[in-house]
Amino acid sequence: MQVNYLFYEIEGELRQVEEYLLEYIQAGHADLRKSFVHLLKAGGKRIRPAFALLSAKYGQYESGKIIPLAAALELIHMATLVHDDVIDSSIIRRGRQTVKAQYGNNFSLHSGDFLFAKALIIIEKYKNNKINQLLAHVSVEMCQGELEQIASAFKLEQNIRNYFYRIKRKTSLLISASCQIGAIAAQADPHIVKTLGRYGHYLGMAFQITDDVLDFIADEKTLGKPVGSDLRQGIITLPVIYLLNCGNEAVKKSLWEKLNSPVSSQDDIHDVVELIKQSEAIPYSLDIAGLYVEKALKELEMLPANEITESLHKLAVFIKRRQF
Amino acid sequence: MQVNYLFYEIEGELRQVEEYLLEYIQAGHADLRKSFVHLLKAGGKRIRPAFALLSAKYGQYESGKIIPLAAALELIHMATLVHDDVIDSSIIRRGRQTVKAQYGNNFSLHSGDFLFAKALIIIEKYKNNKINQLLAHVSVEMCQGELEQIASAFKLEQNIRNYFYRIKRKTSLLISASCQIGAIAAQADPHIVKTLGRYGHYLGMAFQITDDVLDFIADEKTLGKPVGSDLRQGIITLPVIYLLNCGNEAVKKSLWEKLNSPVSSQDDIHDVVELIKQSEAIPYSLDIAGLYVEKALKELEMLPANEITESLHKLAVFIKRRQF
Repeated sequence: MQVNYLFYEIEGELRQVEEYLLEYIQAGHADLRKSFVHLLKAGGKRIRPAFALLSAKYGQYESGKIIPLAAALELIHMATLVHDDVIDSSIIRRGRQTVKAQYGNNFSLHSGDFLFAKALIIIEKYKNNKINQLLAHVSVEMCQGELEQIASAFKLEQNIRNYFYRIKRKTSLLISASCQIGAIAAQADPHIVKTLGRYGHYLGMAFQITDDVLDFIADEKTLGKPVGSDLRQGIITLPVIYLLNCGNEAVKKSLWEKLNSPVSSQDDIHDVVELIKQSEAIPYSLDIAGLYVEKALKELEMLPANEITESLHKLAVFIKRRQF
Repeated sequence: MQVNYLFYEIEGELRQVEEYLLEYIQAGHADLRKSFVHLLKAGGKRIRPAFALLSAKYGQYESGKIIPLAAALELIHMATLVHDDVIDSSIIRRGRQTVKAQYGNNFSLHSGDFLFAKALIIIEKYKNNKINQLLAHVSVEMCQGELEQIASAFKLEQNIRNYFYRIKRKTSLLISASCQIGAIAAQADPHIVKTLGRYGHYLGMAFQITDDVLDFIADEKTLGKPVGSDLRQGIITLPVIYLLNCGNEAVKKSLWEKLNSPVSSQDDIHDVVELIKQSEAIPYSLDIAGLYVEKALKELEMLPANEITESLHKLAVFIKRRQF
């Protein structure tokens, strides 16, 4: 299994999550199993399981108990990835062909539904209403975020609040939930759960902003997909919003000319990517991500000063510096 | 609200379900609300809420308590309809444009996810593990059924067991769950819950077989979509399977020639529809549906002989005779 864990300190437990996932989908339709193993082998950073595992350590930690729950969070995340592939016609994700490209749109749609429903089966076994309700609400909000992203595609009249609304739902809520759920399952103190929820929220925001910046500046091989993918799908992210609002007149004019249509040419997209890369939009966006990381670190001060908190600290710093 | 309730005896309560649904989606994205109201107004028979309401009457019935749950079951069903629209490129469903035709494929995908997640929020409020687990399992199986349908599209080497496997997951499991869930929520006797589950299963099978027959023989206006839709999507249903296995050699040859390709012409489809309509495949399929209805009625004998059981009896007979 080739997985680029974001975080090596809990590698053993993350490997158990991986084994659990692989085992868990042994039953079922042959094509589905094949496509799912394919998806698993494509890897991913497994940050949601990592947060759930770490946060559980603030309570009565039992790895056997927490590993399925950590796996369920990755399943929910994978379900959204598979559905995103339907939406954005991406052929490449995580450096491999997407499920869609291999098996067709219809198959992806129901594979995503399947992964989500399989996650539900795990989650319901915990018989914990707080966890159930939290994930149900997060799921609704995630859909709202996606619908908002569709509605705002190719629309340049966006402000930073629209952007924050979307990325909160796209990324930060599930990361925040992952931070809380491990702690809830391990019966940690409710104040710790709340603090972890805020930490996860801030870090999730930073994570997505960094993701959106990397879509412009990353090395394509490390990124696992072509740069400028967001722009090609009409997704207007922070660097673009910054320049549209704060760039000089020539830059604004150029952006409007090249982006205000779903039929921008590849040359137009290439030009905009180059323009953004060389602009102050990149350091500006990374600064905003940095502010969110600082807010996350601030939350950690309210947690017991122990090894777990130190791990969460390292994770936050890693997210700030990550290149993939 | 134009809803063709399958069953008028609980019309008042079904109307409350309808009002609940309309109220429940007042919050959220404007386009989503619009598309959802559109979907609601397109109607449907609301048989899942009807079963949940009736089955709850075997326990401690409180309409205020049961109506949201009945609504949640309809939301799950609607989510599958919206996703089916993505899958099968149908433009018309229930006599109106589908969500997809009006708003695009991507929007449908996330609307379906949204409806399902909204259902989860309702369901989690009941804090009932049996209900949670039942619906999680049904959701997984429904996805498996859809994936099987995709895998078997345009494949003529199917037997009746493949067909039963699919329609159980496509229709019968959620109807069976609806019959159980009302009773579970109302704390009815577990034996009653089990019997209702079997009744719902048999009736669900009959319902889907009848649906598949109507796809050949119904009046297009009553059906709300063109006849032969299944065949156009490569979905091989009972009448076709019957003729492929039990028709005379000339009929078999003709079916293989005209159906063994995703690019059958409209003329070919029209010919097959006519061939099926005039064959013994229709009465044979309706007989099978009738056998399932009889099995459902047999289950009712194990329930208390009261008004509710009589209503379930009428519902079963209605399903046998339905024209839409």
